[in-house]
Amino acid sequence: MLATVLHGPGDIRYEDVAEPKILKPTDAIIKLAATCICGSDLWPYRGLQPQSGPAEMGHEYCGTVVEVGSAVKDIKVGQFVVGSFATSDNTCPHCKHGFQSSCDQREFMTGAQAPLARVPLADGTLVALDRVPDDDLLPSLLAVSDVLGTGWYAADAARVQAGSTVAVVGDGAVGLMGILAAKQMGAERIIAMSRHKARQELAMEYGATDIVTERGDAGAAQIKALTRNVGADAVLECVGTNESMHQAINAARPGGSIGFVGVPHGVELKGEFLFFSQKNLLGGPAPVRRFMPHLIDLVLNRKINPGKVFDQVLPIADVAEGYKAMDERRAIKTLLRV
Amino acid sequence: MLATVLHGPGDIRYEDVAEPKILKPTDAIIKLAATCICGSDLWPYRGLQPQSGPAEMGHEYCGTVVEVGSAVKDIKVGQFVVGSFATSDNTCPHCKHGFQSSCDQREFMTGAQAPLARVPLADGTLVALDRVPDDDLLPSLLAVSDVLGTGWYAADAARVQAGSTVAVVGDGAVGLMGILAAKQMGAERIIAMSRHKARQELAMEYGATDIVTERGDAGAAQIKALTRNVGADAVLECVGTNESMHQAINAARPGGSIGFVGVPHGVELKGEFLFFSQKNLLGGPAPVRRFMPHLIDLVLNRKINPGKVFDQVLPIADVAEGYKAMDERRAIKTLLRV
Repeated sequence: MLATVLHGPGDIRYEDVAEPKILKPTDAIIKLAATCICGSDLWPYRGLQPQSGPAEMGHEYCGTVVEVGSAVKDIKVGQFVVGSFATSDNTCPHCKHGFQSSCDQREFMTGAQAPLARVPLADGTLVALDRVPDDDLLPSLLAVSDVLGTGWYAADAARVQAGSTVAVVGDGAVGLMGILAAKQMGAERIIAMSRHKARQELAMEYGATDIVTERGDAGAAQIKALTRNVGADAVLECVGTNESMHQAINAARPGGSIGFVGVPHGVELKGEFLFFSQKNLLGGPAPVRRFMPHLIDLVLNRKINPGKVFDQVLPIADVAEGYKAMDERRAIKTLLRV
Repeated sequence: MLATVLHGPGDIRYEDVAEPKILKPTDAIIKLAATCICGSDLWPYRGLQPQSGPAEMGHEYCGTVVEVGSAVKDIKVGQFVVGSFATSDNTCPHCKHGFQSSCDQREFMTGAQAPLARVPLADGTLVALDRVPDDDLLPSLLAVSDVLGTGWYAADAARVQAGSTVAVVGDGAVGLMGILAAKQMGAERIIAMSRHKARQELAMEYGATDIVTERGDAGAAQIKALTRNVGADAVLECVGTNESMHQAINAARPGGSIGFVGVPHGVELKGEFLFFSQKNLLGGPAPVRRFMPHLIDLVLNRKINPGKVFDQVLPIADVAEGYKAMDERRAIKTLLRV
């Protein structure tokens, strides 16, 4: 079949690869209903993350089960499923604590920018819907797989609650989903840090109450100025650079919380800085599986519309153009029709 | 009066200094009932922390109010008081959130290894007892001021709760108080990391259920081995070195929490390490004021005996010997009789 392969910086090809097969009895094969490009795919695309040889890309997915391994008990052929980018058995101690993205058997999904994909640990990773969803819900269900789940985790890790003042660092798709999540959790004030008009508008639509265009120390200072010199109760870090991480920490009040979900590249934190900042930090790959039943429910009941974050839709054969558009920030997030 | 002055590494003198005076209308002057040496005093004593000129030492205190400034409303001359090492107005937004050690007006106490001391922000910093305490309770009340309050905060920041599995990194006085705190909070299992017999014994007396003598990666591995390869729910970091901080983070399970109260010296944390560890971090100078009413109550009702952590008692004139004994780990913590 044809699928998406990254050969090196800037070199995305839609080319022939072997069809996925059941490799372990706990695997399933799904036929994708839609897939997409993730902001984190841009790190290797930009050459900012070492890569050893060609890589089949893609870790966000929803679709129909076409085959299951012999040990798969709950997931059935023909079901419409959504799964997390991090696979999990959903039974180990870490899963039971709600940290499925640190599951003892975790793997990170690959090869989902394709018509078919193999999903390890199918029973623990996938959530089956009780119906085939309406077509117009596909983008939102696809979003659950990573970008919405990750934004939601950022808000959860930052302990957003009713009445919170929240700052969101990063106006990419995850940041925008963080705004949606904070709004759902009852935040009273949501300050989006963005300098791009289209993203500012979507941020406001998802629930942002204020926009701050400054970055770094100036950005953190502006958050303080907007909060009577106190700082935000909760800050969602959705970028992953050293500057954005420090900006996030400095934007929170003492005792406030930072949920950091931008995959860190070059981030270094001094112990003294963390100590005297006196702020809660929790981050990591999002345990999307924990939130999936709730998020799928919100989507199916049309309470939220995370799918709107996809502002570009391409046939999967044009995936290279999708990477280019996201790299150049012409697109927030690109959905690929399979 | 005579008081304790650090002139340089290893050079502690009990010598003539000016008597403290009311400098601001919110100050109080107290006559100390007892004072002591803190593990954190050893950083500059060992030359591991830059020092600009002679420093009047000491930040742990309890005693009787002898003078108050014109703006002091609640604290009265003659009251027996305990106060935190970090002063606070107890009214600013950070104080109201329970982070008095990040008070807008915070100062760190100095000059308390002396017969008299000035306490800034007296109304917000001091808690007055309703009686003059029995003499045998003085060590425990003194402990509230920092070492107990800091150990308690470590357990609180690490979110110890009923049934938790807790690991404590550091067998100094703060680590031992962390054990006492975890026990009070209902921890089911408390693993003390210690290789000193006397400290191990006190750890067991305060509630430790297991002792681990390994350090660093081996120590973290031993915690995992003791917890079915899961890791601790809560880890109290009570040292402040780069090794101990990494040991603490590695000893916690994903989603677990680290409360770090050892003042960091040379600690550097990589973003990728924190991200993929996926653990809660909260530290800083302890907001002792938040816990003081409860801790004083526990002491006055003889529910806890933190004062036992003082295994050396010296007349304050012999303070130099106290520093030496703690530096050489002959004493866990030295109480100074004033």
